[in-house]
Amino acid sequence: MMICKVIGNVWATKKDDALEGKKLMVVIQTDTYGEKVQGECFVAADIVGAGVGERVLIVNGSTARKALGGDDIPIDAAIVGIIDTLEVDRTH
Amino acid sequence: MMICKVIGNVWATKKDDALEGKKLMVVIQTDTYGEKVQGECFVAADIVGAGVGERVLIVNGSTARKALGGDDIPIDAAIVGIIDTLEVDRTH
Amino acid sequence: MMICKVIGNVWATKKDDALEGKKLMVVIQTDTYGEKVQGECFVAADIVGAGVGERVLIVNGSTARKALGGDDIPIDAAIVGIIDTLEVDRTH
Amino acid sequence: MMICKVIGNVWATKKDDALEGKKLMVVIQTDTYGEKVQGECFVAADIVGAGVGERVLIVNGSTARKALGGDDIPIDAAIVGIIDTLEVDRTH
Amino acid sequence: MMICKVIGNVWATKKDDALEGKKLMVVIQTDTYGEKVQGECFVAADIVGAGVGERVLIVNGSTARKALGGDDIPIDAAIVGIIDTLEVDRTH
Repeated sequence: MMICKVIGNVWATKKDDALEGKKLMVVIQTDTYGEKVQGECFVAADIVGAGVGERVLIVNGSTARKALGGDDIPIDAAIVGIIDTLEVDRTH
Repeated sequence: MMICKVIGNVWATKKDDALEGKKLMVVIQTDTYGEKVQGECFVAADIVGAGVGERVLIVNGSTARKALGGDDIPIDAAIVGIIDTLEVDRTH
Repeated sequence: MMICKVIGNVWATKKDDALEGKKLMVVIQTDTYGEKVQGECFVAADIVGAGVGERVLIVNGSTARKALGGDDIPIDAAIVGIIDTLEVDRTH
Repeated sequence: MMICKVIGNVWATKKDDALEGKKLMVVIQTDTYGEKVQGECFVAADIVGAGVGERVLIVNGSTARKALGGDDIPIDAAIVGIIDTLEVDRTH
Repeated sequence: MMICKVIGNVWATKKDDALEGKKLMVVIQTDTYGEKVQGECFVAADIVGAGVGERVLIVNGSTARKALGGDDIPIDAAIVGIIDTLEVDRTH
């Protein structure tokens, strides 16, 4: 799973019906200090009640559909956990 | 999902029969300001009536096939929403 | 789908039996002008009769297997269309 | 599989129920000398009893779910082996 | 498929049972001249009898599992062919 930070929300009126009611958030990958790294923002569906500013775990691809509970949902990124603590060996 | 901008159309006469009738658009990933970022243009099938210049949400891989409603369709990117608003915390 | 150019052929005598008879071509991703971009050549199976020098649409991953008509074929990239025209808004 | 090094642990109280009881570790890709390379840390589920500092083999995507023994588990990276020896031809 | 070169072997005593007996080789992506390119070494299972120094075709992701003949095998890269000849138009 990617370590990301939630930085915003996105609204889309014209969309695939299967996206109706999904909470879509803008996220960005971070390092273990919470700093932005190379790579662009993307949009993930939230299933754990994450808010802007929180650090989260993201799954991508077909795994996101599994997390959302339906193999036919047209979503390829999902927030599956809110990070409490990252304990990292900084000597690496 | 990736945040992209629609920048054009593509035509292909010789193609897999399963692509017949699909609306294929050229898209490029953007940041949350709508600016082009590193990475190349690619082609996505549109299912929401997007037009050139609009900002859209794109799903990739097997999820694109799900969005298109058929697991055997030879398409690996699909436009699943037209972005109305991106509300992003610019302090990150 | 990626926008690529066909630049060659590859031969492999010792290979998975399921690759027997497949036409494998060397391709490289290009921009919308047909110029080579960052990234390496790779090999894709052709199902539309593409030739060296042509611009093509490529699908990757599990979608390539779908394009080849069999979920067990050990191929993860396929040429699914030959590009006639790319009409791109150059102001982006 | 990616060659990675385990560098830490991650805790998340609010998470998808299916993640309950999974051992989640922070890993980073390395070269064959064990040195950190370009690319960010990510989180993988451990199924072989790996510890911080060990070099491991990681599978990604749908393969991680297979490694975890259930196609519906919302995890897209798994540690499937602890590397004893890497024997590499350094002349390449 | 990626064009890679086999550069070594890897041994792991503690590993997922399903990896038992698989021949795991260290590979690196190359250009069409056989030169190393940007990107790191990774590990692929060999099903065609490849040796160190040979140029090979690699499939990734779920396609590697298909190549290995079992959808539940925790391997996400497989060597599916040994390259005899690459015939590339160098004018691109």
